[in-house]
Amino acid sequence: MNEIKHIIAVASGKGGVGKSTTAVNIALALAARGLEVGLLDADIYGPSQQLMLGVADGVRPEQQDGQYLIPIQAHGLKTMSMGYLVNERTPMVWRGPMAGGALAQMLEQTLWGKLDFLVIDMPPGTGDIQLTLSQKANVAGAVIVTTPQDIALMDAQKGIEMFRKVDIPILGIVENMAVHICSNCGHAEHIFGAEGGRRIAAEYGVALLGSLPLAMSIREQTDSGRPTVVAEPDSAVSAIFLEIADAIRATLAAGGEGVVREFPAINISDD
Amino acid sequence: MNEIKHIIAVASGKGGVGKSTTAVNIALALAARGLEVGLLDADIYGPSQQLMLGVADGVRPEQQDGQYLIPIQAHGLKTMSMGYLVNERTPMVWRGPMAGGALAQMLEQTLWGKLDFLVIDMPPGTGDIQLTLSQKANVAGAVIVTTPQDIALMDAQKGIEMFRKVDIPILGIVENMAVHICSNCGHAEHIFGAEGGRRIAAEYGVALLGSLPLAMSIREQTDSGRPTVVAEPDSAVSAIFLEIADAIRATLAAGGEGVVREFPAINISDD
Repeated sequence: MNEIKHIIAVASGKGGVGKSTTAVNIALALAARGLEVGLLDADIYGPSQQLMLGVADGVRPEQQDGQYLIPIQAHGLKTMSMGYLVNERTPMVWRGPMAGGALAQMLEQTLWGKLDFLVIDMPPGTGDIQLTLSQKANVAGAVIVTTPQDIALMDAQKGIEMFRKVDIPILGIVENMAVHICSNCGHAEHIFGAEGGRRIAAEYGVALLGSLPLAMSIREQTDSGRPTVVAEPDSAVSAIFLEIADAIRATLAAGGEGVVREFPAINISDD
Repeated sequence: MNEIKHIIAVASGKGGVGKSTTAVNIALALAARGLEVGLLDADIYGPSQQLMLGVADGVRPEQQDGQYLIPIQAHGLKTMSMGYLVNERTPMVWRGPMAGGALAQMLEQTLWGKLDFLVIDMPPGTGDIQLTLSQKANVAGAVIVTTPQDIALMDAQKGIEMFRKVDIPILGIVENMAVHICSNCGHAEHIFGAEGGRRIAAEYGVALLGSLPLAMSIREQTDSGRPTVVAEPDSAVSAIFLEIADAIRATLAAGGEGVVREFPAINISDD
């Protein structure tokens, strides 16, 4: 019943680097190009897409034939998340195999219909859920999100190596929180270090898909349920997400991993 | 062979909030008070304490009697981490129960000797490893680290509820990345929102142990293997970690959860 052209995983070795924010904005950028896009929140321990998509607490997906789930429409995306299925305050204290089973169920029993892209917002790390995903889903490629500091890069390397071990191509790196622009004086500060994303991309011979600033606007828009690509479609930040989406499409059309390409210097003003 | 007075867990519902940085600085602050302190890096999927402690890559703990591990001394702490036992680039693609087993082994087979405190840097989330810890270790209490934005708080709530479910008292909340001070103009910007830590502490009736700034110095010191309490013992940031350590000791001495207390206004200058 489902016809999905490309499944892509948005992943990070480490949590807190903005993976979910990046995943939802990439999905919205693909949709802004006129494509049919689904978004699966696979972070079943800490699902955050419901809040980011502005889906009201308590909204539950309808069922069909007692076994299928109808995805929730949000900002033009078809979305599914463990957040829709459990109380937001209840922790998911599950053993790994159970968690993997829940993900497989959400992936396979959701009526996605025809999609050009299904974007999977992966849980951080290199554990059970990633194993299950690699076994169950025919993932066309992975996008690795990282911040530029050494400790995040170390975990990003592990993410890259894990996907390569299970033969999932790396579409490229997204560097997040690359530079903070003071909203008062415009001073650019590399709070989390500089150039880390570019360095790791070069080291592994994969593309740096984009480099995003540490901007209060992105966090505020995300927290309020209207991600940047929807809230400020003409902003510099949205332009970066659209470029990332286009690069992903081009790489998949060419077949294979994202190759190293020259990436323009960061030129962001925080508004 | 081990005599450990208090085991405390430093945890977060969400990754990337500065849990490991907080854990190592709390351990160092307790040591600065003249106590014997151990630090167990329980984030076996993404161990970062080796880098934060400045322990050279390739250093391996010595074994005793073929089954015990001698902890690695670093900045006066006795430390153990999966980072000492595996190659830093190798991802830990393990099933949950195996991961839990590795943690139990590191906890029980390390020759900690006599300790006043063993600080456990927990992996983020509410999965297997937390379950195993609650089953194996006699944890005296948990410190929950969070950033102030809504999405992090949602996960912090889950962390609190998980520990309460397994009857581990909450010693309090540490709010991290609370405010960024521009190094150029001194402008204070609440990039990740304001007052979130205080709000969640009040909601659950637990203590706000401290509120730390988003400062480049903390990230740089951490990445270079000399955490702030060691690198700048007289700084405002170190003073906050010492206060947190003292509050933890006081709470444990009184027996029970950290109670709500008035916390002084944040007054940090980034140097």
